Amino acid sequence: MNEFDLIDKYFRNCGAPRADVPLGIGDDAALLACPPGEHLVAAVDTLVEGIHFPAGSPPESIGHRALAVNLSDMAAMGALPAWALLALTLPSIEETWVQKFTKGFGELARRHNVSLVGGDTTKGPLTVSVQIMGFIPIGQALLRSGGKPGDLLFISGTLGDAAAGLNIQDSEGEKNYLKKRFQFPEPRIELGQRLRPFASACIDVSDGLLGDAGKLAAASACGVEIDWETLPVSRQLLAFAGEERARVLALTGGDDYELCFAVRPENLEALERQLPARQWGYTRTGQLRAQHGAVVKRAGNVMDFSHSGYDHFGP
Amino acid sequence: MNEFDLIDKYFRNCGAPRADVPLGIGDDAALLACPPGEHLVAAVDTLVEGIHFPAGSPPESIGHRALAVNLSDMAAMGALPAWALLALTLPSIEETWVQKFTKGFGELARRHNVSLVGGDTTKGPLTVSVQIMGFIPIGQALLRSGGKPGDLLFISGTLGDAAAGLNIQDSEGEKNYLKKRFQFPEPRIELGQRLRPFASACIDVSDGLLGDAGKLAAASACGVEIDWETLPVSRQLLAFAGEERARVLALTGGDDYELCFAVRPENLEALERQLPARQWGYTRTGQLRAQHGAVVKRAGNVMDFSHSGYDHFGP
Repeated sequence: MNEFDLIDKYFRNCGAPRADVPLGIGDDAALLACPPGEHLVAAVDTLVEGIHFPAGSPPESIGHRALAVNLSDMAAMGALPAWALLALTLPSIEETWVQKFTKGFGELARRHNVSLVGGDTTKGPLTVSVQIMGFIPIGQALLRSGGKPGDLLFISGTLGDAAAGLNIQDSEGEKNYLKKRFQFPEPRIELGQRLRPFASACIDVSDGLLGDAGKLAAASACGVEIDWETLPVSRQLLAFAGEERARVLALTGGDDYELCFAVRPENLEALERQLPARQWGYTRTGQLRAQHGAVVKRAGNVMDFSHSGYDHFGP
Repeated sequence: MNEFDLIDKYFRNCGAPRADVPLGIGDDAALLACPPGEHLVAAVDTLVEGIHFPAGSPPESIGHRALAVNLSDMAAMGALPAWALLALTLPSIEETWVQKFTKGFGELARRHNVSLVGGDTTKGPLTVSVQIMGFIPIGQALLRSGGKPGDLLFISGTLGDAAAGLNIQDSEGEKNYLKKRFQFPEPRIELGQRLRPFASACIDVSDGLLGDAGKLAAASACGVEIDWETLPVSRQLLAFAGEERARVLALTGGDDYELCFAVRPENLEALERQLPARQWGYTRTGQLRAQHGAVVKRAGNVMDFSHSGYDHFGP
């Protein structure tokens, strides 16, 4: 089976069909119809074997994550995703691997009505780069830069699960839960869109909360203070790692793909009324402040974190 | 220098500034303003070290080619390129390498008014994936599928130079010319746009004319006949490889990034009047025919080519 047969069999109908794709996979480029009155939102994220996922990871997970990390960028902008391109570099064509990869990618794509409109399949070390495109009404995007001192800081879901799950092989109890949180993260697409009227700034937590909240604060020309005690951690992570380590993972572990967002105090009531925290599963865990930098406060004292987030070229 | 400093210093101002980029590099995604009445045209192409370019290639060439191969896809659609995203996977950060890479990428980008609006820098084996976006007035795109039997086949520029130049180290005379043709291909952006009223079908020659003309013909539900005698080859390739080998390279060598296009006989006069071949440097070298498959005719006889084009997973 060569590259072209592979594309026909597994990629052509992998994503959702959409009426705004006059020409999809198969020509030199795709033709796409952008809706009037909206901005196109575009991002790219790459997963490299041995760096972003362990060698030998299940292909369904690699396909799911490659799209999920990009959908998460759409969520962080408050955007509605629409189209994806896939640049897949593979050491060799193993049909079973490709079938499972496209199953993982395709199920998530169809669930979010995302069409796979093009791509490139090349030979080389396993690397998956997805380019995602979506829309947002002009002026409504959630930027990192809209925060200001006094804004309250919120996190969706729980943090630290994926970092704990990264190297878990077991499939029992809380270990299975944590493993799945790494392998099949759920991008917060709907929450991101609903946050448009309420959030002053937003970022997705891909590299660890301390680092990513720090980036949001820096883009907003301020600093951030995170509360140790209110960090949202799952009961599975608490059972697996104990409270101390669970909270450290919540602060510094990557790959959660939850949303970290800021809300002006005057919008808090509207947020809680229209997007009840109990229903939407987010937690208030700090605030922006004038003093630059990202700090964690525990029982009123600033904690020392030398390890702040994840630098892809770090040690 | 970490990932974030690198992006600030070398990538932020690498491409052309454009008024239709309300938000470029630096947030979770870029915001882009699509022109009304046009389709968005999107494609992705990846270069892997050791597969698409020799290990140790000049970084300027890698940067140039990574964008050029994508611009060539825009040219093949008749599209006007606008924005690019860059997924760059690097074994380590070497500032000099990155500086030279962005010089090669940036010079070509600015020449074609392309803005680098986002990207992702990751650690791993050297892989460069570029996603390009451009525009075309609705209904005017050059597809592979518009040809029909009797259409005349044309090629821009000359073929085979890049394949000959791939492994040349010398910098003298025709060898230098061929080497540069591999290292710094010129995408036929302007020609592609001007061909909109005349070409019935178009593809760019990335994997070898025989294979790519065959793809155009197959998409057009017909076959193609290529004339051996009229294949456009450069005097430098003739001097380097001799006539026989030069024409074989023209048929089967990849990486030329010239345009292969079909024109209905009744449009020939208008094409020659409005885009004189002498000025635009294209050559008629065959025609589409009803019988499927791609064949080469030499002195009236069909030649045998077992090696038809370039399959990335082939031997």
